[in-house]
Amino acid sequence: MTPTMLEINSKRLLDDLAALGAIGKTAQGGVSRPALSPADLAGREWFEARAAEAALDFAKDGAGNLSARLPCTDPDAQTLLLGSHLDTVPNGGRYDGALGVLAALEVLRTIKEADVELPVHLEAIAFTDEEGTHIGLLGSRALAGQLAEADLAQSRTEGRSFDEGLARLGLSRESVLAARREPDSLAGFVELHVEQGRRLERAGIDLGVVTSIVGIRSYWLHFGGQAAHAGTMPMADRADALWGAAWFVRQASELVMERFFPGVVNCGEIELEPGAFNIVPGEARLGLEFRHGTEAALDEMEEALLALAEEAARRYGLTLTARSTGRLAAAPMAEPIVEAVEQAAGELGLSYQRLISFAGHDAQALSGITPTAMIFVPSVGGISHHPAERTADEDVINGANTLLHTILRIARA
Amino acid sequence: MTPTMLEINSKRLLDDLAALGAIGKTAQGGVSRPALSPADLAGREWFEARAAEAALDFAKDGAGNLSARLPCTDPDAQTLLLGSHLDTVPNGGRYDGALGVLAALEVLRTIKEADVELPVHLEAIAFTDEEGTHIGLLGSRALAGQLAEADLAQSRTEGRSFDEGLARLGLSRESVLAARREPDSLAGFVELHVEQGRRLERAGIDLGVVTSIVGIRSYWLHFGGQAAHAGTMPMADRADALWGAAWFVRQASELVMERFFPGVVNCGEIELEPGAFNIVPGEARLGLEFRHGTEAALDEMEEALLALAEEAARRYGLTLTARSTGRLAAAPMAEPIVEAVEQAAGELGLSYQRLISFAGHDAQALSGITPTAMIFVPSVGGISHHPAERTADEDVINGANTLLHTILRIARA
Repeated sequence: MTPTMLEINSKRLLDDLAALGAIGKTAQGGVSRPALSPADLAGREWFEARAAEAALDFAKDGAGNLSARLPCTDPDAQTLLLGSHLDTVPNGGRYDGALGVLAALEVLRTIKEADVELPVHLEAIAFTDEEGTHIGLLGSRALAGQLAEADLAQSRTEGRSFDEGLARLGLSRESVLAARREPDSLAGFVELHVEQGRRLERAGIDLGVVTSIVGIRSYWLHFGGQAAHAGTMPMADRADALWGAAWFVRQASELVMERFFPGVVNCGEIELEPGAFNIVPGEARLGLEFRHGTEAALDEMEEALLALAEEAARRYGLTLTARSTGRLAAAPMAEPIVEAVEQAAGELGLSYQRLISFAGHDAQALSGITPTAMIFVPSVGGISHHPAERTADEDVINGANTLLHTILRIARA
Repeated sequence: MTPTMLEINSKRLLDDLAALGAIGKTAQGGVSRPALSPADLAGREWFEARAAEAALDFAKDGAGNLSARLPCTDPDAQTLLLGSHLDTVPNGGRYDGALGVLAALEVLRTIKEADVELPVHLEAIAFTDEEGTHIGLLGSRALAGQLAEADLAQSRTEGRSFDEGLARLGLSRESVLAARREPDSLAGFVELHVEQGRRLERAGIDLGVVTSIVGIRSYWLHFGGQAAHAGTMPMADRADALWGAAWFVRQASELVMERFFPGVVNCGEIELEPGAFNIVPGEARLGLEFRHGTEAALDEMEEALLALAEEAARRYGLTLTARSTGRLAAAPMAEPIVEAVEQAAGELGLSYQRLISFAGHDAQALSGITPTAMIFVPSVGGISHHPAERTADEDVINGANTLLHTILRIARA
């Protein structure tokens, strides 16, 4: 870093991370702040207090998204968003989400203290329920106008607890739907986040510059054979549904590793009928999920995997029914913002590499309405959603400084 | 058949099969006479009436086994047993068990009517609960002295219903244990049964001469890997428990078909943990069962299959725990009785082949205490335990005549 470059206040940021990590702290040393829970509300209050302390404007929208704002002198200027989420999975870690919100807050404090004048409003935002305790990416999708009443009816919790949670924040389903922001009012969105993987750590690289957030497609593959007595039915005559499913599991993994890297495939569920030691499986239902960074790659993977499932069925004399059960589009990041991140990192003397995010993030929703990018910092051992989740202090600081200089670049572009 | 050979009364046997098949008949055309049920009791009464009608002695032992007896003149003579069971699985077929009991009854009637004098008592026996509604092979194991109090405590039904069922027959657990017969009092046991498979039908062969009843060994194989995020965990870094289990399923099938024919292996159950579309399986529990005709072959299969499971674990970086969950010894048939069956079949001009029974039968228990053999007749389409279970009339008659001449040969040996 050149001596004249603006820098965030490292100690303040690390102290903030420790303080927020104490809210909802679990016996195992993790953090439980599921969205709309009492611990989440406590975290939100703490964040509001930090904004007030920093003399930043504060706002809460109809979806419960919290914003600390640093307005510029032109009231008609666009708003440049930066942030992430404060909620966690049960017994999760201290960095997932929290880092992006606190670094955003720190960037605003740093810019405000340095009296830097920018042609855009800055807004450090904490989105509601990224983890999907009730509805995944609730706050960011609401802001992006990607939610309808039907989506709110599909809360993972039963309706009452979701509505009660909203009520605790003085919100309602109506207010959530009204949280939509005009895309024209926004200048972009940048999210700093922990990698939740081991790619950066292994490569010894400081930063990941996300080029897209994976699209996810999932299927139930039903292989149908013939249930039979496991003793009297000769093996050569069997139509064993598990044989097809097992062959597919192995072949699919090899196919994806060979042809679709860094795309991934997972078979995480399997159910057999009738499901007894002494009965040849007559039906195998296999859960298939695959991810890649672009819709084009997903289309190719889908075609190859479904053809493979058909080959499995043919090979073992089975029927095949493939039922789509999920389709989340890949979210490409905006190239100018991606380049701004790379330039900021380069300026700071940090190493970086482009990569795909294989987990979902609020940036995914935002990318639909405004130029968006994400910055990843290394996760120690790749561990995430776990009390042992950790990012080294140095990486926290590097990430926040990169966020600062990315924001300065975009704001001035 | 030479003109002078004794023959069973075909019409009477087929009529009996039809009459018994009407007891417990289901809407689907099957038969439901689970052991100790009202339908089973009705079947038993019907059998007792047939014995009385034929002026045969009748007896019921402490395990509820029913016997029609044709005594010889020497009260100290041994008893030659022939028979099978009257109970069925729910909505099963008309031949499984019933054929062996009714053919045995018919053999006694034929010999009695022909005034053939033999040096042994003949006993057509119907064993209790072969299918294991309460306790598999209850009657034959009780007779063979292979049951202990602890076995009776492990009824598949809760204790009350088992005890109530016994009480309906005027029996108790104590009487069941007292049903043991002295091996020295027995001259042997021959069971005629439907094949419940397609080997005879395919080969176009009239009869199967069973050389042994399979031994069955089963294991739970626990493959342990590392549960992980299906997006962020690169495929090359995974310890996916399903990969190991799937590889094992395929390799085990191929290994057994290549090296252990006609032995069979089945993986009929599989459970994944945590079991979600988006989580790499951290644990796979696979149910493994394998069968073969001799203990030596089972030992070899066991060694090879467990080594294969270890290779699967090694290959995919998993741990392996193999937990034995069942061990039923293979039951070899007695060679002299097997040869008597072959000679009887040859005399009748019927084609036959030796084979292993891959399902359990009462003969399994009896083989432990007296020279035993089984005769199989073809099952149409191999279907069994199903309303569509059928054996052609001609095959029923061939089987009964073979049983008759086998009994005559053994009795005179």
